[in-house]
Amino acid sequence: MACNLLKGKKGLIFGALNEDSIAWKVAERAVEEGAEIVLTNTAVSIRMGTIDKLAEKCHTVVIPADATSVEDLEQLIDRTMEHFGGKFDFMLHSIGMSPNVRKGRTYDDLDYGFLQKTLDISAISFHKAIQVVRHKDAINDWGSIVALSYIAAQRTLYGYNDMADAKALLESIARSFGYIYGREKHVRINTVSQSPTATTAGKGVMGMSDLMQFADSMSPLGNATAEDCANYVLTLFSDFTRKVTMQNLYHDGGFSSMGMSHRAMKTYEKGMRFDDVHEHQFPFGVKEEEK
Amino acid sequence: MACNLLKGKKGLIFGALNEDSIAWKVAERAVEEGAEIVLTNTAVSIRMGTIDKLAEKCHTVVIPADATSVEDLEQLIDRTMEHFGGKFDFMLHSIGMSPNVRKGRTYDDLDYGFLQKTLDISAISFHKAIQVVRHKDAINDWGSIVALSYIAAQRTLYGYNDMADAKALLESIARSFGYIYGREKHVRINTVSQSPTATTAGKGVMGMSDLMQFADSMSPLGNATAEDCANYVLTLFSDFTRKVTMQNLYHDGGFSSMGMSHRAMKTYEKGMRFDDVHEHQFPFGVKEEEK
Amino acid sequence: MACNLLKGKKGLIFGALNEDSIAWKVAERAVEEGAEIVLTNTAVSIRMGTIDKLAEKCHTVVIPADATSVEDLEQLIDRTMEHFGGKFDFMLHSIGMSPNVRKGRTYDDLDYGFLQKTLDISAISFHKAIQVVRHKDAINDWGSIVALSYIAAQRTLYGYNDMADAKALLESIARSFGYIYGREKHVRINTVSQSPTATTAGKGVMGMSDLMQFADSMSPLGNATAEDCANYVLTLFSDFTRKVTMQNLYHDGGFSSMGMSHRAMKTYEKGMRFDDVHEHQFPFGVKEEEK
Amino acid sequence: MACNLLKGKKGLIFGALNEDSIAWKVAERAVEEGAEIVLTNTAVSIRMGTIDKLAEKCHTVVIPADATSVEDLEQLIDRTMEHFGGKFDFMLHSIGMSPNVRKGRTYDDLDYGFLQKTLDISAISFHKAIQVVRHKDAINDWGSIVALSYIAAQRTLYGYNDMADAKALLESIARSFGYIYGREKHVRINTVSQSPTATTAGKGVMGMSDLMQFADSMSPLGNATAEDCANYVLTLFSDFTRKVTMQNLYHDGGFSSMGMSHRAMKTYEKGMRFDDVHEHQFPFGVKEEEK
Repeated sequence: MACNLLKGKKGLIFGALNEDSIAWKVAERAVEEGAEIVLTNTAVSIRMGTIDKLAEKCHTVVIPADATSVEDLEQLIDRTMEHFGGKFDFMLHSIGMSPNVRKGRTYDDLDYGFLQKTLDISAISFHKAIQVVRHKDAINDWGSIVALSYIAAQRTLYGYNDMADAKALLESIARSFGYIYGREKHVRINTVSQSPTATTAGKGVMGMSDLMQFADSMSPLGNATAEDCANYVLTLFSDFTRKVTMQNLYHDGGFSSMGMSHRAMKTYEKGMRFDDVHEHQFPFGVKEEEK
Repeated sequence: MACNLLKGKKGLIFGALNEDSIAWKVAERAVEEGAEIVLTNTAVSIRMGTIDKLAEKCHTVVIPADATSVEDLEQLIDRTMEHFGGKFDFMLHSIGMSPNVRKGRTYDDLDYGFLQKTLDISAISFHKAIQVVRHKDAINDWGSIVALSYIAAQRTLYGYNDMADAKALLESIARSFGYIYGREKHVRINTVSQSPTATTAGKGVMGMSDLMQFADSMSPLGNATAEDCANYVLTLFSDFTRKVTMQNLYHDGGFSSMGMSHRAMKTYEKGMRFDDVHEHQFPFGVKEEEK
Repeated sequence: MACNLLKGKKGLIFGALNEDSIAWKVAERAVEEGAEIVLTNTAVSIRMGTIDKLAEKCHTVVIPADATSVEDLEQLIDRTMEHFGGKFDFMLHSIGMSPNVRKGRTYDDLDYGFLQKTLDISAISFHKAIQVVRHKDAINDWGSIVALSYIAAQRTLYGYNDMADAKALLESIARSFGYIYGREKHVRINTVSQSPTATTAGKGVMGMSDLMQFADSMSPLGNATAEDCANYVLTLFSDFTRKVTMQNLYHDGGFSSMGMSHRAMKTYEKGMRFDDVHEHQFPFGVKEEEK
Repeated sequence: MACNLLKGKKGLIFGALNEDSIAWKVAERAVEEGAEIVLTNTAVSIRMGTIDKLAEKCHTVVIPADATSVEDLEQLIDRTMEHFGGKFDFMLHSIGMSPNVRKGRTYDDLDYGFLQKTLDISAISFHKAIQVVRHKDAINDWGSIVALSYIAAQRTLYGYNDMADAKALLESIARSFGYIYGREKHVRINTVSQSPTATTAGKGVMGMSDLMQFADSMSPLGNATAEDCANYVLTLFSDFTRKVTMQNLYHDGGFSSMGMSHRAMKTYEKGMRFDDVHEHQFPFGVKEEEK
């Protein structure tokens, strides 16, 4: 499908860990479509993952930075501009983590220090990155900024915990800053609300694989994969979408507009019958932990 | 719970068929809360149902009218104003029917004459009723008009067919007319998006009872019943909600804000396992008609 | 910007009247991006406009068809498939007209015969076109269908009249049919909610030019033009957006996510002061026709 | 309008400062409608405002608490339960403050320590209050919790700054916790998105009075006042709305569903003409600070 969609464009990509990462696929595809890129992630993620391989493949560098640190971000942007020899055109934010989820704190028993970290890492880092690039006037006019979000920002999914609130905050930041950056420099800011995806981060969420199956079954086109997402994000970086801003864009095979599909209902109905049929076979019932 | 919430108010109620009807419950509760009402329905529905009983209970009359006929509506409003000795305060529209659903025409094989009827009966009748009451200046300042809707207007549910489109149109009419009637006479117009409800109309929709179970399982408060809906609608007729207009209000136990509940997921997961477990027992599989 | 985005794709475009038309720009740009197209419009529009010029420029034919006539649509699809020698990949619906607007019937005094026409021309024609192409299996797997919409489907703009209701219906049809066509053939269906645009149709709406100025002033990126819209629609026809379906996508410079911009407020505030300053100069006030 | 709507109910009200406060009006009206209440605010606000007067009028006490302190909240709930002799039924959160707004830090130059405070005070305090009451099982089954929000959570209004993000977070918390508290105790949680209101807090936002005039002019019913809001909130505390949860409910005279009113457009148009007319009178133009 390569058609040089991003010919001559330059961009900075946050959050590639390994080849399951959406950010990884965006980086690969961006380069295939003619872009130059710079990669960044935290020092820990760089060690844990395989981003160096990606950098090699993309003929570029990895600049370590903690996206919650304004100081790190300032150095990152300086070094990115040095690398490119000037301003760049696009930026991808694909960062999210909840210590509450990791430590098994349920939503009705949050640790508020952890919550602050969830919000800082998953949402406020987006504001910080934009504030820094704008102060440094690092992005060309008509540039494009994208962050990855999830429908939990609008609808509650059990187990997604305080990440739902972080995504709501993230999407709000896109709107709030989209107004300012748009009117001044024509830089657009959008979020892409992606299908549940089997990334390393995604796999950490409780019950993820069954939820993914449900989402797939509800969506007329099936779940969007990381590759699909990369392609979609590229259109938002291209000059074909210059007037799209302050939007949260569902990239989910139709899930967000579904109330109930025939296919998902068939599976659900079998579950309903199962209870009737098997009640006597499992006399002690299934212990349902309602958390 | 009676507290004379509607003391001194008068209203016209469309669409009570029998005691399962939401309109029936609204009528009963409105009278309990101190309102006077007039009932109306088509001649056919009056014969088929038991609205005369309701009229007796509510100490009022039934005035037959086909809500798709402007002439009928004009006579209805004249007679309603005669009955009340002047203007009235509220109006409920609880009308919906799809010949395509009844005749088994699927959404990819609609009969366009039927579609026109679906829209006329289920949505345009709302515009007609409002246009007539407004021309006759039949509603007091700060009056309230409500129509019943369903989340199919926003999200596709298989089998709901062209009723989804009718509900979208209905909600748009509420907004469009709400602007005009609001600025001129302070009359507010809203739609209530109600849980799936076991009314005579509701039962006609394919797979309704399983869908109701799913909705109930998804909703943290469970499905809202017809009685619940009546109570909610009364608040919208009362003077406590004078500044709410042009809204579609979800009255659904939380369903509209849910992505996936733990409870529904447990049932769904059993359905997923069921396939694995029973594959050899039902060697020919379950014929899934994917329509 | 040509990068052969639609190389090898074929599509059918409804609604190009003259070079101000969005459909015209989509046709031109689609061909520049490597697509083959067929054009269609009503016989009257073909005579009134200059679509033959466009056909020449795009090396293609114009097939007359009334999109409200299933018979016409059947012939159109047959002839389009003949022209292409088989199935095609995309379809654009850019059709809207309200006899109520044209004849000056306000929203509180609608002619219901006209309303039926508004809905048939502006919304139901979209269902008919999709039903016909699906019956004839005329669109390739992973094809893409787009209709043009407007934010009046969500928010009331005075003077937009029953076109608001038509757009709400149009967007609902996109969702309802998107589910069916998606699960069966992976064909996606979306609507693009475009900035107010100075097309021949747009100019017909009351007070359009001032409204366009307001929208432009509210939108951080300014209004999206017909050319911008064409570029955006092309991304939806391309393989980069295969998993986007059942969406209403705002292409409006950010307008839909704005509550109030600084720029628009400055103009508004001057209008507020104007009243104070000029009250004594226009002693009888300005007659405001509140319709 | 008193009809004993809240007869026998008990509730806790956060955020009454003086008689302009929405929380003040809710307290007054709740008592008029038969409820018992407890008031709370920070020690500073108690000193600065006149809440003691309100307590007297409502025959109740004021318990000081900083809603960002879990410890304070725990003591508050203990003392509230002591006062009531057990559980209570409703809770109002009407708290919001942005140090960034107060200190004149624009959204593209946020102080991140301040941002953390904005979020903690205006949104996370809501989570804390709910988490504490739930841990203490302080609210009766079918109880009701409401927080006050603003449309800035969905649409950007210049000058509203990081409060927009705080409101988005607040609304997300209502959904996330509404799911958990609903399924377990049938406690419902909603936010009311209120018209701009001339409270002490509201007046702090830049350009508030002109914005209020614009909102009033856009809204067919005009802006909702603090008194209107109180009445509406009472319906949400009553048993008439038991199945409404996880919703953000616009109480705004219709503003949220408006794209443009005739009335607001007339003023805007005068502002457009003003520029043309007065250009020569103010030769140096109006210095527009575009922030």
